[in-house]
Amino acid sequence: MTDTLDATTAGGPVSPSRSVFRPLGSEEARIVGGFWAHKQDLNATTIIDHCLTWMERIGWIGNFDRAADGTVADHHDGIEFVDSEVYKLLEAMAWELGRSNNSELDRTYRSLVSRVAAAQEPDGYLHTSFGREGQRPRFSDLEWGHELYCFGHLFQAAVARLRTGHDDLIVDVARRLADHVYIEFGPNGRDAICGHPEIEPALAELGRALSEPRYLELARIFIERRGRGRLKTTLFQSSEYFLDDIPVRDANVLRGHAVRAEYLAAGAVDVATEFGDAELLDAVKRQWTNTLAARTYLTGGVGSHHQNEEFGSDFELPADRAYAETCAAIGSVMLSWRLLLATGEAKYSDLIERTLLNAVLVSPREDGKAFYYTNTLHQRTLGSEPVEDELSERAEASLRAPWFEVSCCPTNVARTLASVASYFATASSDGLQLHQFGDLDVATSVNGSPVRLQMRTLGYPFDGHVSITVEADDELELSVRIPSWAGDAAITIGGGTLAAEDGYVRLRRRFDPNEPLLLDLPLAPRLTYPDPRIDALRGTAAVERGPLVLCVESTDLPAALQVDSVSLRTGSPLRETPDGASVSIAITEPGSAVWPYGSSPSADGRSETTVELRPYFQWANRGPSTMRVFLPLAGE
Amino acid sequence: MTDTLDATTAGGPVSPSRSVFRPLGSEEARIVGGFWAHKQDLNATTIIDHCLTWMERIGWIGNFDRAADGTVADHHDGIEFVDSEVYKLLEAMAWELGRSNNSELDRTYRSLVSRVAAAQEPDGYLHTSFGREGQRPRFSDLEWGHELYCFGHLFQAAVARLRTGHDDLIVDVARRLADHVYIEFGPNGRDAICGHPEIEPALAELGRALSEPRYLELARIFIERRGRGRLKTTLFQSSEYFLDDIPVRDANVLRGHAVRAEYLAAGAVDVATEFGDAELLDAVKRQWTNTLAARTYLTGGVGSHHQNEEFGSDFELPADRAYAETCAAIGSVMLSWRLLLATGEAKYSDLIERTLLNAVLVSPREDGKAFYYTNTLHQRTLGSEPVEDELSERAEASLRAPWFEVSCCPTNVARTLASVASYFATASSDGLQLHQFGDLDVATSVNGSPVRLQMRTLGYPFDGHVSITVEADDELELSVRIPSWAGDAAITIGGGTLAAEDGYVRLRRRFDPNEPLLLDLPLAPRLTYPDPRIDALRGTAAVERGPLVLCVESTDLPAALQVDSVSLRTGSPLRETPDGASVSIAITEPGSAVWPYGSSPSADGRSETTVELRPYFQWANRGPSTMRVFLPLAGE
Repeated sequence: MTDTLDATTAGGPVSPSRSVFRPLGSEEARIVGGFWAHKQDLNATTIIDHCLTWMERIGWIGNFDRAADGTVADHHDGIEFVDSEVYKLLEAMAWELGRSNNSELDRTYRSLVSRVAAAQEPDGYLHTSFGREGQRPRFSDLEWGHELYCFGHLFQAAVARLRTGHDDLIVDVARRLADHVYIEFGPNGRDAICGHPEIEPALAELGRALSEPRYLELARIFIERRGRGRLKTTLFQSSEYFLDDIPVRDANVLRGHAVRAEYLAAGAVDVATEFGDAELLDAVKRQWTNTLAARTYLTGGVGSHHQNEEFGSDFELPADRAYAETCAAIGSVMLSWRLLLATGEAKYSDLIERTLLNAVLVSPREDGKAFYYTNTLHQRTLGSEPVEDELSERAEASLRAPWFEVSCCPTNVARTLASVASYFATASSDGLQLHQFGDLDVATSVNGSPVRLQMRTLGYPFDGHVSITVEADDELELSVRIPSWAGDAAITIGGGTLAAEDGYVRLRRRFDPNEPLLLDLPLAPRLTYPDPRIDALRGTAAVERGPLVLCVESTDLPAALQVDSVSLRTGSPLRETPDGASVSIAITEPGSAVWPYGSSPSADGRSETTVELRPYFQWANRGPSTMRVFLPLAGE
Repeated sequence: MTDTLDATTAGGPVSPSRSVFRPLGSEEARIVGGFWAHKQDLNATTIIDHCLTWMERIGWIGNFDRAADGTVADHHDGIEFVDSEVYKLLEAMAWELGRSNNSELDRTYRSLVSRVAAAQEPDGYLHTSFGREGQRPRFSDLEWGHELYCFGHLFQAAVARLRTGHDDLIVDVARRLADHVYIEFGPNGRDAICGHPEIEPALAELGRALSEPRYLELARIFIERRGRGRLKTTLFQSSEYFLDDIPVRDANVLRGHAVRAEYLAAGAVDVATEFGDAELLDAVKRQWTNTLAARTYLTGGVGSHHQNEEFGSDFELPADRAYAETCAAIGSVMLSWRLLLATGEAKYSDLIERTLLNAVLVSPREDGKAFYYTNTLHQRTLGSEPVEDELSERAEASLRAPWFEVSCCPTNVARTLASVASYFATASSDGLQLHQFGDLDVATSVNGSPVRLQMRTLGYPFDGHVSITVEADDELELSVRIPSWAGDAAITIGGGTLAAEDGYVRLRRRFDPNEPLLLDLPLAPRLTYPDPRIDALRGTAAVERGPLVLCVESTDLPAALQVDSVSLRTGSPLRETPDGASVSIAITEPGSAVWPYGSSPSADGRSETTVELRPYFQWANRGPSTMRVFLPLAGE
């Protein structure tokens, strides 16, 4: 299982030439029901259309039409990088078409691609905000113009199209644009980088998908150029903000702007993999480990500072000022997935599970028509219903917003949901690996022989029962990740009891399709305590249940009681409920302090009640509420 | 003592027409030695010169010369509002001249005023960044241009000159400019306000000092216009940021940009006082009370968010992400002082003392040549020495910076130190009030009779012994504030024991100048616990000694031990040291967690030592260090 493979199939969003685990393509791994099917259906029926409707209405798609007919310099809607939102939507549509092949979506998709393509200039350049008479010159503002960032998202849209079996117009557009970028920024071009990383992993993938070494080489060049102070800093944005402070291979931890940091690190893994650069891969592994140890929220969210959307210092993880941008969580999944493929280590899938279920899924409202941009772990004040047809600032209030002036998150959620099946399973030369749990069909080949696998759940992540059926002619090794939250306990699987080793239960055998393997993951609610170095969380605990972080929402409290006046009674049992837990809490009457510092510690709560804790990702779906994940501990 | 007075003298930076307490002028109250004299001397010999030298070197003063000779549109140094730094320096110089009458400073001052005056345009307008060919039009960017903000600081500079006995060039300049603003923005002018409040208190003071009702009226108009959504918001700055979300008389708490909020509230008190608007005064008192109760750091600092330099929500007071801008602390002193004069309530002086000694004095380095802009209460990482001749961003590292691109704080410190004597004492129709402790001479008249008072300390704030001598022909009432930190204990004063009532010990008598009153304030170190609603501080305590907040600095710890690995042993005695305290601390070896959330709470520290705690305002004067005010509590 640990030998390195050549890629044999398309392989979803990421397809390294060589890796420990081989990703499966959208034809090979399909979600067929359950929790994730519901999310993918919501995406297909609602989120994609929501993004399309908004971007038509506010002119972001119209920018391409006006670029084609020569009027965009007079009338451009939105900020400089709104092109990227259209590209992320195209990527989402391409993955969704690979999954569902809906003919109406296919027409919509082709029409949108043709409008984008019409805006491309004869030399391959394509951006609606730069380069025309009356606009700023091309590449005149690399720090803030986000041109290469937008190109990167176009490349990823083309990769999605290629990996779902089509080599058509968007791929032509991407190829011409990538050739243009190679001339402009390649070995004989200007010695420069983009303020916002993204083109790095995108070029690597486009190079892989098209077998074009120049694109891989340019990805490598962009990675190597970074960290040497090329980008102009400002009063508020330092080189660290741009990840331009330290060369990627020398850095010890993710820092600066969180989304940029995750995208850059993802690109660095791609480059390290393609060029066999073990030092660069080790550097990113080290950065991932140190970021996990001291700069990651319990939800998997990252980025503690509202100021500059940045990582904070080690252990600077305030619940109430968590920025935890949705896109940064998605970037974290992109990075962890690449590291999983490169190393085969289960810890990367552990973080993917945590992040997808908590930090990403919290963003879309249950109806798919509003989103969080930032994801606090502690909402103190009641917000109000958003106006459904108004552009919002970054949603920091207690309710999600339908669309943002910088609206990177909704389209990012859409492309992630459409391609989420790719994170569930991989193959190797002699086996299959299951990384995430859900209702999944796999149809692939291992060592030249066809293999079919069916995984079914009784409602994961709310229920821990998983059954797996494998149909194969030959012996093979099935590896099933046992999540770190499931503890060291032996796992009952296939009628016997097996211990997990390095995060996997491994079964090497000829499988009988009539004898399903049964796995029972222990989902009992558990208390989780923060490291005492996290100032903002000292003296609190959170409750988790299986992979889900739970929270207390004011909606579930007795009337008029806010979440800030309750504490967790230590020692009182956690009782399980269908989706979460209920627990005794102590209630402290809100004091009327005139000065919030006193000569004695505050007394514990004086009355008591029981409250239901629910999954964090579901909060704020029942009207304005206050919420918290970490609860202060009150003595017994 | 509670009757309302007409103003009879000049009266320092603030001189209401009617108030409960009458402020004393710079001739009436003088600091003559001790702690504050040292700070005022540092200001006179170093800080003022430091500001002047920097602003000459980097062209901010030269902007005025270029405005006068017509070249400033081609070459303007610094951001739009650097004029205001020159005006705050002029204000500082004027107060300092009133205090010391140094002839060299007088020449420097007059020269600088004449350079400013030469830039004034025929219609009275005066700003180096707007209105010329090649510059943006006047008043074309009220949100961000800061024109009226700059004018306000010019008016305050003129007020300082008037209140120190001169009606000369800067006053002429201010009068012409204020007349211009009245035409442009008065009852027949444009219906608009400035993004950054400041002109409101400045116009009120200029109106008082020049007995010009139009200026008072315009201050009132600006206050009334605010809070009704006149200012254009941006992606990141809401109406709340601008304090344009709620009319001043309707708001319940300070919010938005902290400096703007404090300046605006100060202006509102001025307007309420002058127009007898009890509703407006009550609104600001309510805002002050609610801000103190839930939005103020132990140091008196305010503003929890780096993002937008804003107040946070209630109880959102993280130590490590404290923004606590120096200028916001100065704004808080300005506001509290106005409320003290208007109400006579000691709580306002309590906050002034706390804020001056901790949140303001921490800004200047001991040598007066570097400053904090933001003032954290918990520094986790070692910084490095600043480059002494480079412009810095807002100093957030562990060492202060000599000058900033936005350098509002150094000149604000300078004008505050030069006029700090004004906060120490007031008069009323039949008495004198002492609000702050230090070595002070008062020479004024009460009820028409001359009164002299001498206050002397043995090193306050490090020592609590205060002696007071009063020389007066008639009986009068002396009120001495007993700080709230001194507790309910009776105070030995004048040979007897008197209890404080409503924050004051009051003595009505004929005073014998040969019988000093002796006051002994209890400075024993004490533990202070945060309200449990402050998430970021739960399970910690701070140590205070008298009016000083203490801190642990890595410089005082055993080698290689960082402040993040120590806890306070509860139950161990606080031993007093000359300037602070020493206390037993528990030491926890830094763990090597891979994931900072676990299934059991962390154990208490395993080894133990004793550490000296020192005044917070003195930290970071001995090289790079880490520091914290609130220490985690470890069990006994």
